[in-house]
Amino acid sequence: MDFLAKGAAVLGTGGGGDPYLGKLMAKQAIVEKGELPLLDVDEVPDDEIVISSAMMGAPSVMLEKLPNGGEPMAALKAIESMLGKKAFAIVPLEAGGINSCIPVYTAARLGIPLVDCDGMGRAFPEIPQVSFSLGGVTASPMVLCDEKGNKVVLEAIDNSWVETISRAITVAWGLCSMIGLYVMNGRILKETAIRGTTSLSIEIGRRIAQSARENLSPVDSILEVTKGVRLFEGKVNDVQRNRTTGFIRGNAVFEGIESYKGSSFRIEFQNENLIAYTNGRVCAMVPDLITVLDRESGNAITTELLRYGQRVVVIGMPCAPIWRTPKGLEQAGPRFFKYDVDYVPIEELARGKV
Amino acid sequence: MDFLAKGAAVLGTGGGGDPYLGKLMAKQAIVEKGELPLLDVDEVPDDEIVISSAMMGAPSVMLEKLPNGGEPMAALKAIESMLGKKAFAIVPLEAGGINSCIPVYTAARLGIPLVDCDGMGRAFPEIPQVSFSLGGVTASPMVLCDEKGNKVVLEAIDNSWVETISRAITVAWGLCSMIGLYVMNGRILKETAIRGTTSLSIEIGRRIAQSARENLSPVDSILEVTKGVRLFEGKVNDVQRNRTTGFIRGNAVFEGIESYKGSSFRIEFQNENLIAYTNGRVCAMVPDLITVLDRESGNAITTELLRYGQRVVVIGMPCAPIWRTPKGLEQAGPRFFKYDVDYVPIEELARGKV
Repeated sequence: MDFLAKGAAVLGTGGGGDPYLGKLMAKQAIVEKGELPLLDVDEVPDDEIVISSAMMGAPSVMLEKLPNGGEPMAALKAIESMLGKKAFAIVPLEAGGINSCIPVYTAARLGIPLVDCDGMGRAFPEIPQVSFSLGGVTASPMVLCDEKGNKVVLEAIDNSWVETISRAITVAWGLCSMIGLYVMNGRILKETAIRGTTSLSIEIGRRIAQSARENLSPVDSILEVTKGVRLFEGKVNDVQRNRTTGFIRGNAVFEGIESYKGSSFRIEFQNENLIAYTNGRVCAMVPDLITVLDRESGNAITTELLRYGQRVVVIGMPCAPIWRTPKGLEQAGPRFFKYDVDYVPIEELARGKV
Repeated sequence: MDFLAKGAAVLGTGGGGDPYLGKLMAKQAIVEKGELPLLDVDEVPDDEIVISSAMMGAPSVMLEKLPNGGEPMAALKAIESMLGKKAFAIVPLEAGGINSCIPVYTAARLGIPLVDCDGMGRAFPEIPQVSFSLGGVTASPMVLCDEKGNKVVLEAIDNSWVETISRAITVAWGLCSMIGLYVMNGRILKETAIRGTTSLSIEIGRRIAQSARENLSPVDSILEVTKGVRLFEGKVNDVQRNRTTGFIRGNAVFEGIESYKGSSFRIEFQNENLIAYTNGRVCAMVPDLITVLDRESGNAITTELLRYGQRVVVIGMPCAPIWRTPKGLEQAGPRFFKYDVDYVPIEELARGKV
């Protein structure tokens, strides 16, 4: 769980929140219920159904508005009873702090396997931004539960309405809900899932820990496993954040150190890091991954925890190939987030720099 | 239907919206499906269930975002299938333009009776403000449907959360949803309903029409049937309205004419008229009814349709006795709406004036 949470935070590109609470919940569930199988996507039978389990909203809110622990299962059970069918396994929606832990928690509590995959290969802010959606899977029926016991079952005409309605409910609940959604069978999972995200997260986490033990550069290990590039090294000079629209939006400004001395760097985010500029020029953008790492430990720093004075290395990593298709870019490319730039893969941007 | 809509608008105290569209829908349903029985509350068997059918949001929005006509039935059917039981009859939630018509429409379409009662004896802005709620009935399970085909089933821990969550969804939908809620059996309906509201509405409408034919004062007829008092006569000088929070909030200022010349009058509203002042002194307040009537025709003018220059008579009417109980005042008295005044029944205020 420690490796998973650490590694998923790197893939979380600033989003996904502090995994602290989710990790505690998952560990406790495993202690009580025993270890759970991590299945390869191909091990899910074609006609069995899988369901995604996740937290929606601002993870920092969850640290104050503690979950009662029953919400994720309540959401799953509600979907199962609607369908009249049991879930064969739980599927993670995204890679990122809390939402890598919640599926483990839910699967352990229900005593069913977790599938080694996700719908993003990273974290994204909105519900439709998953590979399942690109493959035609509808997010609804979706169930939202809060820690007080409120429950909503949503059947929307498309995934964009799922986002609008579920976001409004999550905001009404104070920016935190536990959700069950994206019901699909094994056949469709095989067509649409981004495979191996859970094991990749664990591997990243393991390499970070190993580097610490062996006194190696954790950043280099991460770049090796993720085929990423180093974008910047510096310290955090300024962070702006606001929470007015159901998301954490803002930007962070960095000042270069060492070989980056004299350079400036800026990241804009909406829960996740969206775009990064070196000296005013775009050097990485969605759907590629942009992650801020602590310079010493290599641990990912989420947009919520960025603060003045931190010494960091910013890295960029190529996204899953599906996001580079026209449909993928329409759903999660720079123009989706209102940036008037054409998408250029991070590898090309990095080559241009050299 | 014409009498019902006209009369209900008088009881709607400025809210409930323009019944035009709802009336057309109800008439069409009756033409196609035949007349429907109007049952006395006592005619509903104790163990049969009844469901309320209503429109939530700003009725003026509905005039532009036309319903597809299937939403109220979709909402009812969803509740029925959850319960595994058919509704015996439809119960109106409130008296007021659109929400006196929708229950007729739904009942006619489903081919089941309408019950001669409601939960308010007037209109109120919020979901928990019904006599059923005071009697301990929960508003949820509640179903919301929009004209696009989106559907939400809500199970909340109390009626205040029903209001918060359903209002957020209705706002996300552009201020208009069709809802089914307050499922109860006949026994509880008999304990909690405000009886005879539908037939009273029809009677008021009939008297307005009769006065027009016989050249009598429609206002006098209305006061006679409703035991109301004349509060003011004048013209509309100014109307302020805003729609920012899911309600239409604002106030209207009137200038006296005839025997009220030289006097000023002001009404504050939140969908419905909440409080009225003559020359700065409170002369009527929630939960009593305050309605602005067209001076010539006696037709009620809703808060949405108030405009500069209209010649009006403002009347006050005593509310149903349940609203004057401590629990009723807590849910719908002046302090609920943030007015720092003690409730004084309109009859006493009127006596004080004389």
